[in-house]
Amino acid sequence: MISAEIIAIGSELLLGGRTDTNSVFLSEMLANLGIEVGFKTVVGDNVSHICQALVVASRRVDIVVVSGGLGPTIDDLTRDSVARVTGRPLRRRDRVVKAIKERFDRQRREITTNQLRQAQLPMGADCLTNSVGTAPGFSMKWGKCRLICLPGVSHEARQMFTETVQPLLSREGYVRPPLRMRTIHTFGLLEGHVDEAIADLVPKSGRFRLGLLASPMGVSVSLTEIHPEHEKNKENRLFFDNNKVELEVLVKSISTRLYPHVYGYDHEKMEEVVGNRLRDSGLSISVAESCTGGLIGHRITQVAGSSGYFERGVVCYSNHAKTSLLGVSPAILRRYGAVSAQVARRMAEGVREGSGTALGLSVTGIAGPLGGTAAKPVGLVYVGLSTPNKTFIREFRFHGDRGIVKLRSSQGALDVVRRHVCGLPMGDA
Amino acid sequence: MISAEIIAIGSELLLGGRTDTNSVFLSEMLANLGIEVGFKTVVGDNVSHICQALVVASRRVDIVVVSGGLGPTIDDLTRDSVARVTGRPLRRRDRVVKAIKERFDRQRREITTNQLRQAQLPMGADCLTNSVGTAPGFSMKWGKCRLICLPGVSHEARQMFTETVQPLLSREGYVRPPLRMRTIHTFGLLEGHVDEAIADLVPKSGRFRLGLLASPMGVSVSLTEIHPEHEKNKENRLFFDNNKVELEVLVKSISTRLYPHVYGYDHEKMEEVVGNRLRDSGLSISVAESCTGGLIGHRITQVAGSSGYFERGVVCYSNHAKTSLLGVSPAILRRYGAVSAQVARRMAEGVREGSGTALGLSVTGIAGPLGGTAAKPVGLVYVGLSTPNKTFIREFRFHGDRGIVKLRSSQGALDVVRRHVCGLPMGDA
Repeated sequence: MISAEIIAIGSELLLGGRTDTNSVFLSEMLANLGIEVGFKTVVGDNVSHICQALVVASRRVDIVVVSGGLGPTIDDLTRDSVARVTGRPLRRRDRVVKAIKERFDRQRREITTNQLRQAQLPMGADCLTNSVGTAPGFSMKWGKCRLICLPGVSHEARQMFTETVQPLLSREGYVRPPLRMRTIHTFGLLEGHVDEAIADLVPKSGRFRLGLLASPMGVSVSLTEIHPEHEKNKENRLFFDNNKVELEVLVKSISTRLYPHVYGYDHEKMEEVVGNRLRDSGLSISVAESCTGGLIGHRITQVAGSSGYFERGVVCYSNHAKTSLLGVSPAILRRYGAVSAQVARRMAEGVREGSGTALGLSVTGIAGPLGGTAAKPVGLVYVGLSTPNKTFIREFRFHGDRGIVKLRSSQGALDVVRRHVCGLPMGDA
Repeated sequence: MISAEIIAIGSELLLGGRTDTNSVFLSEMLANLGIEVGFKTVVGDNVSHICQALVVASRRVDIVVVSGGLGPTIDDLTRDSVARVTGRPLRRRDRVVKAIKERFDRQRREITTNQLRQAQLPMGADCLTNSVGTAPGFSMKWGKCRLICLPGVSHEARQMFTETVQPLLSREGYVRPPLRMRTIHTFGLLEGHVDEAIADLVPKSGRFRLGLLASPMGVSVSLTEIHPEHEKNKENRLFFDNNKVELEVLVKSISTRLYPHVYGYDHEKMEEVVGNRLRDSGLSISVAESCTGGLIGHRITQVAGSSGYFERGVVCYSNHAKTSLLGVSPAILRRYGAVSAQVARRMAEGVREGSGTALGLSVTGIAGPLGGTAAKPVGLVYVGLSTPNKTFIREFRFHGDRGIVKLRSSQGALDVVRRHVCGLPMGDA
């Protein structure tokens, strides 16, 4: 088993103002090459700390991937740290100088002397060309490990990994069959229920590690392939092919157990699943939101091409808006209250009639922190879906703060649409 | 200077499906106690990896904070790892057993034997009571370092830190004057411009470290206090009081240089700043969105109490919706196109007239990836703000993918409102 560590460099990552997104795709790209990330270290812009982290990593894994600290400023310390810790002094690379100058010429920008710091690489290191930015990466063999330094800018690191790192690792014999991972996304079940429902399907000592992740979007089940520790299997394609079949069989049996709560797989999001279904079936939709405040419209329109099926959204935060935009009668509002099945129904029907779409979706609820009562607590949410034949209503009771209730409500509403367009049972009314 | 390392435990954190949010508030809480986090390590659910990480951390910092791995399942390995690496076997604590049983009784839940694993703590460790959950934390002196193990569930860890860890660190003499940090948030400037504008204000070798962070929300400037390495200053309150004054003076001079682009400080978000201003001045607002798809309404309604000033939102993704909901004439749409200053104007005026609010905000633009032309490229966005006296129009040209353009557009639109309600110049028309 080939192991890797990711070292993310940047004081801002330690302070927490920003999360390190690069390690997410780096882990994934490495897993595709059969390389498992065992550790991730975050360290500030500090030469002595970076050097310590490099030494520790080089002793415990086969591949060390450093992310960040390659830019032109005085705070970019990866080059200096690697030079110091490996004992290979920095040397200016003329080809890199030329490439940086050409880049600035093309963009008609004035070059500063700082920019040329990026052309200083440790002696003997392989330069990794940056085809979409200025700072090149570099790689070298250091003791028993392979050190790879990538820029912190995400799209540059991603491009560099595909174009130069992957071929390099392959040439050097680090690549193994991919560590397969599948994720099954569900909505509407508790973590404990999912656990009980599928526990017997995945043997504890088997070839796959089972993981459960609960979030406002629902509970996701992940299955990760575990490579045998013994290198003798590394050439044994048959073994991995069998694993692949077994993994897909497992995914299928888990999905069957969790049906109809399974809404997607791997990177799929609810809004994409719903959007694809609407597009394929030629159905248009309009949305009337109260407590979600526009979040459902926002999520639907995150999908490119959503203008093909999303006609309009109405965020009626006031009763006046519910009446004037959707035709909800003041009498109904007075009698049942804005958060009620009756108002959800009228909102869904009203937005569908006004827009002329096939479907009209509505949400009304209490996001909190204020506005809850004993009868109608914070987290009480009604979803309405008006269709040519019938209007469906579902009641939800969500937990969490205002932001979480909004997220869960948007997910619940989109799930009602999914169940309708997929011809699934609606669940508890 | 007291240093700390955070070790976050969980295979899901390595795979990247989920980011580790605990280390964000832990860093902040430690900084408030004058303790600087120098390293952060993420490690999977694997005893040998956890032990390695513990050994490395114990050698390089004064305080090791472990987050996660304290739950009842077989995958919760922090207790076992600490026992193994420190040589202190696990012992069942009767008081913890009692507390767990009482908790289950109160909630009328059946207790499983797994739950009692949480009562096993390393010999001699101090138990850290969990007042909002089941798994207790624990702490011990180990060699030269202080080891603190907290549950992975955020609100439990947060509560435990305040209630038990903070007093413990204080008793043991680890606490120093807080490492102050201030952040100044701007919108509408490039990172390079901010850098140039303020470079001379913050001496490189001074008491504060300057950081710049660019995101779709704008460029933020952070100033972090650096404690003197020499412990002799630790009792010198005067030194730190002077620093405090100096920090506030710096924040003020930086703000003056970046005026009127500064929209907030520290944890403030644009929607909070705008919301507070609207509430305080008694102004109501309605929003007409096209390319942002509901994101502006969503952001405005993230703020508790926004129903006091937010009347409605309209997401008019089709021309039909623009005409029927906002009264934008088909002739104007034909003549200028949906993405134009003229349509932005009519949308803002239309939503304001329909809702009867003091202000009407509109956005129309091309979020991409498709729909751009040479004359109207992806990222071209018009914002309109209709007020009782005048309608303002601003044109933006944003870079980035669909999601980024939507975020920047929502931020640009809210900034237009901010400038209006604060009586600031509108910027380039």
